[in-house]
Amino acid sequence: MTAILILNGPNLNLLGTRQPDVYGHTTLADIEAMCRNKAKALGVELGFGQSNHEGALVDEIHAARGRFDGIILNAGAYTHTSVALRDAISSVELPMIELHLSNVHAREAFRHTSFLSAIAVGVICGFGAKGYGLALEAMVGHLETAG
Amino acid sequence: MTAILILNGPNLNLLGTRQPDVYGHTTLADIEAMCRNKAKALGVELGFGQSNHEGALVDEIHAARGRFDGIILNAGAYTHTSVALRDAISSVELPMIELHLSNVHAREAFRHTSFLSAIAVGVICGFGAKGYGLALEAMVGHLETAG
Amino acid sequence: MTAILILNGPNLNLLGTRQPDVYGHTTLADIEAMCRNKAKALGVELGFGQSNHEGALVDEIHAARGRFDGIILNAGAYTHTSVALRDAISSVELPMIELHLSNVHAREAFRHTSFLSAIAVGVICGFGAKGYGLALEAMVGHLETAG
Amino acid sequence: MTAILILNGPNLNLLGTRQPDVYGHTTLADIEAMCRNKAKALGVELGFGQSNHEGALVDEIHAARGRFDGIILNAGAYTHTSVALRDAISSVELPMIELHLSNVHAREAFRHTSFLSAIAVGVICGFGAKGYGLALEAMVGHLETAG
Amino acid sequence: MTAILILNGPNLNLLGTRQPDVYGHTTLADIEAMCRNKAKALGVELGFGQSNHEGALVDEIHAARGRFDGIILNAGAYTHTSVALRDAISSVELPMIELHLSNVHAREAFRHTSFLSAIAVGVICGFGAKGYGLALEAMVGHLETAG
Amino acid sequence: MTAILILNGPNLNLLGTRQPDVYGHTTLADIEAMCRNKAKALGVELGFGQSNHEGALVDEIHAARGRFDGIILNAGAYTHTSVALRDAISSVELPMIELHLSNVHAREAFRHTSFLSAIAVGVICGFGAKGYGLALEAMVGHLETAG
Amino acid sequence: MTAILILNGPNLNLLGTRQPDVYGHTTLADIEAMCRNKAKALGVELGFGQSNHEGALVDEIHAARGRFDGIILNAGAYTHTSVALRDAISSVELPMIELHLSNVHAREAFRHTSFLSAIAVGVICGFGAKGYGLALEAMVGHLETAG
Amino acid sequence: MTAILILNGPNLNLLGTRQPDVYGHTTLADIEAMCRNKAKALGVELGFGQSNHEGALVDEIHAARGRFDGIILNAGAYTHTSVALRDAISSVELPMIELHLSNVHAREAFRHTSFLSAIAVGVICGFGAKGYGLALEAMVGHLETAG
Amino acid sequence: MTAILILNGPNLNLLGTRQPDVYGHTTLADIEAMCRNKAKALGVELGFGQSNHEGALVDEIHAARGRFDGIILNAGAYTHTSVALRDAISSVELPMIELHLSNVHAREAFRHTSFLSAIAVGVICGFGAKGYGLALEAMVGHLETAG
Amino acid sequence: MTAILILNGPNLNLLGTRQPDVYGHTTLADIEAMCRNKAKALGVELGFGQSNHEGALVDEIHAARGRFDGIILNAGAYTHTSVALRDAISSVELPMIELHLSNVHAREAFRHTSFLSAIAVGVICGFGAKGYGLALEAMVGHLETAG
Amino acid sequence: MTAILILNGPNLNLLGTRQPDVYGHTTLADIEAMCRNKAKALGVELGFGQSNHEGALVDEIHAARGRFDGIILNAGAYTHTSVALRDAISSVELPMIELHLSNVHAREAFRHTSFLSAIAVGVICGFGAKGYGLALEAMVGHLETAG
Amino acid sequence: MTAILILNGPNLNLLGTRQPDVYGHTTLADIEAMCRNKAKALGVELGFGQSNHEGALVDEIHAARGRFDGIILNAGAYTHTSVALRDAISSVELPMIELHLSNVHAREAFRHTSFLSAIAVGVICGFGAKGYGLALEAMVGHLETAG
Repeated sequence: MTAILILNGPNLNLLGTRQPDVYGHTTLADIEAMCRNKAKALGVELGFGQSNHEGALVDEIHAARGRFDGIILNAGAYTHTSVALRDAISSVELPMIELHLSNVHAREAFRHTSFLSAIAVGVICGFGAKGYGLALEAMVGHLETAG
Repeated sequence: MTAILILNGPNLNLLGTRQPDVYGHTTLADIEAMCRNKAKALGVELGFGQSNHEGALVDEIHAARGRFDGIILNAGAYTHTSVALRDAISSVELPMIELHLSNVHAREAFRHTSFLSAIAVGVICGFGAKGYGLALEAMVGHLETAG
Repeated sequence: MTAILILNGPNLNLLGTRQPDVYGHTTLADIEAMCRNKAKALGVELGFGQSNHEGALVDEIHAARGRFDGIILNAGAYTHTSVALRDAISSVELPMIELHLSNVHAREAFRHTSFLSAIAVGVICGFGAKGYGLALEAMVGHLETAG
Repeated sequence: MTAILILNGPNLNLLGTRQPDVYGHTTLADIEAMCRNKAKALGVELGFGQSNHEGALVDEIHAARGRFDGIILNAGAYTHTSVALRDAISSVELPMIELHLSNVHAREAFRHTSFLSAIAVGVICGFGAKGYGLALEAMVGHLETAG
Repeated sequence: MTAILILNGPNLNLLGTRQPDVYGHTTLADIEAMCRNKAKALGVELGFGQSNHEGALVDEIHAARGRFDGIILNAGAYTHTSVALRDAISSVELPMIELHLSNVHAREAFRHTSFLSAIAVGVICGFGAKGYGLALEAMVGHLETAG
Repeated sequence: MTAILILNGPNLNLLGTRQPDVYGHTTLADIEAMCRNKAKALGVELGFGQSNHEGALVDEIHAARGRFDGIILNAGAYTHTSVALRDAISSVELPMIELHLSNVHAREAFRHTSFLSAIAVGVICGFGAKGYGLALEAMVGHLETAG
Repeated sequence: MTAILILNGPNLNLLGTRQPDVYGHTTLADIEAMCRNKAKALGVELGFGQSNHEGALVDEIHAARGRFDGIILNAGAYTHTSVALRDAISSVELPMIELHLSNVHAREAFRHTSFLSAIAVGVICGFGAKGYGLALEAMVGHLETAG
Repeated sequence: MTAILILNGPNLNLLGTRQPDVYGHTTLADIEAMCRNKAKALGVELGFGQSNHEGALVDEIHAARGRFDGIILNAGAYTHTSVALRDAISSVELPMIELHLSNVHAREAFRHTSFLSAIAVGVICGFGAKGYGLALEAMVGHLETAG
Repeated sequence: MTAILILNGPNLNLLGTRQPDVYGHTTLADIEAMCRNKAKALGVELGFGQSNHEGALVDEIHAARGRFDGIILNAGAYTHTSVALRDAISSVELPMIELHLSNVHAREAFRHTSFLSAIAVGVICGFGAKGYGLALEAMVGHLETAG
Repeated sequence: MTAILILNGPNLNLLGTRQPDVYGHTTLADIEAMCRNKAKALGVELGFGQSNHEGALVDEIHAARGRFDGIILNAGAYTHTSVALRDAISSVELPMIELHLSNVHAREAFRHTSFLSAIAVGVICGFGAKGYGLALEAMVGHLETAG
Repeated sequence: MTAILILNGPNLNLLGTRQPDVYGHTTLADIEAMCRNKAKALGVELGFGQSNHEGALVDEIHAARGRFDGIILNAGAYTHTSVALRDAISSVELPMIELHLSNVHAREAFRHTSFLSAIAVGVICGFGAKGYGLALEAMVGHLETAG
Repeated sequence: MTAILILNGPNLNLLGTRQPDVYGHTTLADIEAMCRNKAKALGVELGFGQSNHEGALVDEIHAARGRFDGIILNAGAYTHTSVALRDAISSVELPMIELHLSNVHAREAFRHTSFLSAIAVGVICGFGAKGYGLALEAMVGHLETAG
């Protein structure tokens, strides 16, 4: 059975518990639940994690080798500063989809560059929590084609 | 009934008829058919167009006002060079999703900049023909939330 | 009798028909009427055109040779991206005034560069529809001095 | 009665008295006279000043508060180097039109940047002494609309 | 029989009819005649076109597939701004020679960059109308070698 | 009672124990003691922490929500490289003062950029250990005004 | 007795008399009074000046030699454009603290560079009028340590 | 007895266990064994560590003070992004040699800049696992000369 | 009788003797023979030289004054680094055509800039050994027109 | 009789009275005396001035017209920031030699650019007070040749 | 028997005969002797040369083909300016190690770029004369692996 | 007796023999004679040389050690491209004055940067052949002061 890991980077643990009038009330737990439903519907196994530590994210990517077939990575702030995450993905040779809640291209200039994009299968950004579902579908589609 | 316009830019008319070993045999007509099926499933009306002319694309975006609720724009090469398309989208005040078949971030440097991203709802790239389906879902989701 | 062509670029056809609370209710037709009045008062003949197509604007500039004595060019978005328009103006050797409704210097960085400015007689921007009247006066003044 | 201040920056005092074959015989006094006629015709009161001192220009802008309704600023060389003038204009909260005799965009690269443009109502350049008359009209028009 | 398409971009239709003291009296029709003679001498079939419209040039490149063996492209101003033309050439997979009448490297800085050079067989510039003959020879030579 | 968290980044734990002839003998413990005295004098509660781990600093900022009213952040080297810390501060919506022992502007160029400054209340740098006291005063002052 | 000069640059004379809803009602005279109180408390003599003229500020810095032990410089707009002020400070060899009312790093890009920072003891910005008191304390602290 | 610490950064733990056809079968354990042999031959004591966590690497560098005489640092991806590691090395005042398995100058542009090089004794890159032996020799040689 | 010098820069002496599967078997001697035939056919005298020494190339250009009517310069690597060659050509006031075997615009970025292009009559690149024949024709054509 | 004006910019009034161990004991008065001797020897009349005010320097340059035949300008810090001084020199159409006491190219990067150099006859820097004598000779030589 | 060429660039002939307190007393002859001993120990033949002439270095690299199996290149100043040396190395298709006595990354910015690094096997810098021995070992190791 | 070497770079051998209407009839031999006279008057010994070869200039600088007390270097085109010349001057530890006939700052942008300026005593440019005499005086003055 196909298995997909969804990995979330720094500050995403606070989702939904702050500024609900701005970001809404959807928490990361809600997103995980939503993803688990979607995964079930798509017939794939799901891993779901979050860390504020760059090194811990690297460790989790390493651990994904042999256990998962693809990674959906919402690296948050580390997207723009971490070569280590890029190298980790390259090292485990798993297909990766880069995901962002917000449309990073409409924000500060330093969010317009990504160390991850060049080695990603593709990028999805700007669709909020719904982007997770789209990314799951996209990964399943990619694995079907590539497989 | 919600109506969505999918607009394709220069050179996309050649899809599937060249280098089938590289790009596959999916033509733009195949993509249109696939999108019409998806639209039917999602319960939305679909417009679908393509032009190699920047001015014609501007005209089509203008014509979309009042007829469509959102635009999925695969502007191809014009993504990187056309302020006119950006202004057209801004003028008609319709939500727009930027779409690319390939992962533009893994290609030449001049494809890493987009005049469209900053005014898009979101961006989807790198998933080939399947990206159209994802974009349709994303637009429907966006219109439901925004509506 | 002196003849002046006013040429308008992409998206200017939508003027006044969208976001009236922001841009006002003045349409491009209103501006043309205003300009025709002003031209009559100044004793000059007026041409007035608009296109969303870069190539069509080039064609109109070519056609102006021998028929007009000067061109007022509100090239809109093409100001920032079109070398073809610059070369067209240079080719027909007619004096050109660059015009913008908004103060482009107070907007996005990509609107701060113009391919047209270096070959213009002068530039007028930021005065909305009234800028057209100023440009007409300026062109008449320029032609009197140059003639 | 509406009052408008025209303020001229460094070296403009030499106008008309040097290289008459190049710049013509129009002196700054001629321009002032011309502007006074125009102001009378437009029914506005006129202030007219010049200084080679950045600080003196700042002082004059400060003094304009409460006495004038708008400022036409030909800051000459200070356009490209003075944040102090920009802040002075911002401080007194008067509408300002940026004016240049020559088309600065057709000259050296360091004249293509302006600290003033981003906070100006609009910019007029390249029309020589006639630009003053256009700027007066533009300011009167702006004050009517804004008023 | 080998067939070669010579495609000319914006403003080249005005050749020879303006500033004859500067550019000489050679018109694009003269160049076409000269090229037809040369083509006959070289034993190749010739196509010859011109357009001021970027989209029309893209269309003509598409139409060249299956009809021509190589393209000589004097894209004029579009050389420096059009990714669409680059993609069109890449799409039809025909060898292309980039041609310019003038030595673009001795002109404005924005003419020193070309979106076409990186995918061209080679570049010829600076030899005026005679460059067309050289380009025809070069293309014939290239096709012989590549064939 | 107002509570303020002082958070110190990488390498600040070594303070005073190395190169005493250069940096003096003041340790981070000395600074903490000094700050506790100052806090008592100012009538505020104090939190004081240090970590060499970017992720741990993010965690501590998260934990500050609800427990502290403001953060004084001497992020050390992470000032110049961490978007994650910036986003953490933005997420918890607490006022933050950026603090540096040395005058970073008089050091290497890469220390002249800060991801934190743009979202800080203010910045204090160059005053060594005494800067902590100034920052405490500044934060108390800010909270009084903002409150 | 230690003597400290506080020097204020262009436009700071308008403080408190404009946009009171934005900048508050604190005038430069209020700040001076506040500083005199603080100086008295700290047991130091105070000089306090302001000018809109770069040259006058240079003159005042020169005059400070032998009369003051340190300079607190809120150079306003000249911070970003004046090498002359930097050289003046270097010439008189007095310790200088760079001060700004606003957090310049959160404003326009041209306010992110300072000719003064590299030769300052330290920098304080973003704390409004209260920054003056902090700077006085910082200077007294610095003079005690350095002395 | 001279003691040298070899510290390895992110993703180096995966060495030899992935893509053996590309990177060979040498694991980090193999390298450690090789280094221990070499250290014995050179008569020096060896420390050997690896972490994917930037903060942990900083901690290990701190811990090296007093226990080691020099550090060989293969910081991997952190080479290009970590000011914290640079400051850690500067703080402990131990000589450091920068080491890379691959020739970073022949890879992506972002690998051409290093925060570590400027404070290193020297740099060795491109020699794969053998580079560790060279670095050990180089460090011993450096310590002999410096001692 | 018209005389043309063909001058070749560094490493061109190795042509045809290395990597014959890549660069073919054509040696510089073969090219010289081919050029001598072409020169005979065109009725011009030919000089042909090569050096790996920048200074020797400068000397040969100097020596060309009075002996040759034009220079075809394949400066190889010196194209991108030698101001001395540019000045030599300017000094002897002979028309020069810049020639490259490969399409330099499709290679490394540092080959996209040339110190020679701006003072050349024209540039030919990308046609391999055949480019020499084209350059000879182009020079003869240029000398006929200019003469 | 030929008359030459030597004009000195900001901070040069402090020469010789500060850091005598660094800059020596030569004051600006000493330099003036030295220049007057040299001028007498060269048979030219001398003007000598200094100001810390950019505007005052502009005024003095204006006043030089008709009274002096050439200007030696040590503009100090204004060299790098003043377009007004450049325009003043251009306006009075007097030959100008740019002079600096120190070798500005061996100092901070912002001293490597000069608004004056491009319109100067020549530049002399790095020779301390002796540079004044060299500049006087150079100006006399220039005026003899130009006259 | 394996043969290795060590080639030294400009100014390295002066080694040890100047500033002995800075660079030590090791001359290039000493280094050559040291290298010959090391080569003997490693069982390889050694070539050793030096020139101040870029062209002569190119010639020596050409001559190395067929006689040597690898080149150790300390190109000195030419490292940063010579494309000709890079192309020479590429032409002879011999493995090359880039060597520097000093740590170039800790010196002026223009020494941070190298035309050689991208085509080198690896780079060694900062270890003074001892670097030659390391480079010899590295080259022997590389040839063993590659062979 | 003080001895000074004047060294001239590429293309300066052609001086006076080309474009006499532009550059005058002064040859390098005339300049040498003029310099010999000046040297005699100043009581110094003179060396005078020229080469088009960068390496030969390096050799001559090396040979100057022990024979000359200072070098006047008109490196011509190599000024802008040669690190080798800079290092040669640094190696021989002789004071050097950078000299140019023309005002390089008024020419092409690539002539505005110099590898030599930062290590020169001073720079003199723009005074034609007379600059040599000024440089001799400046060097004698420098040697007197430094001696």
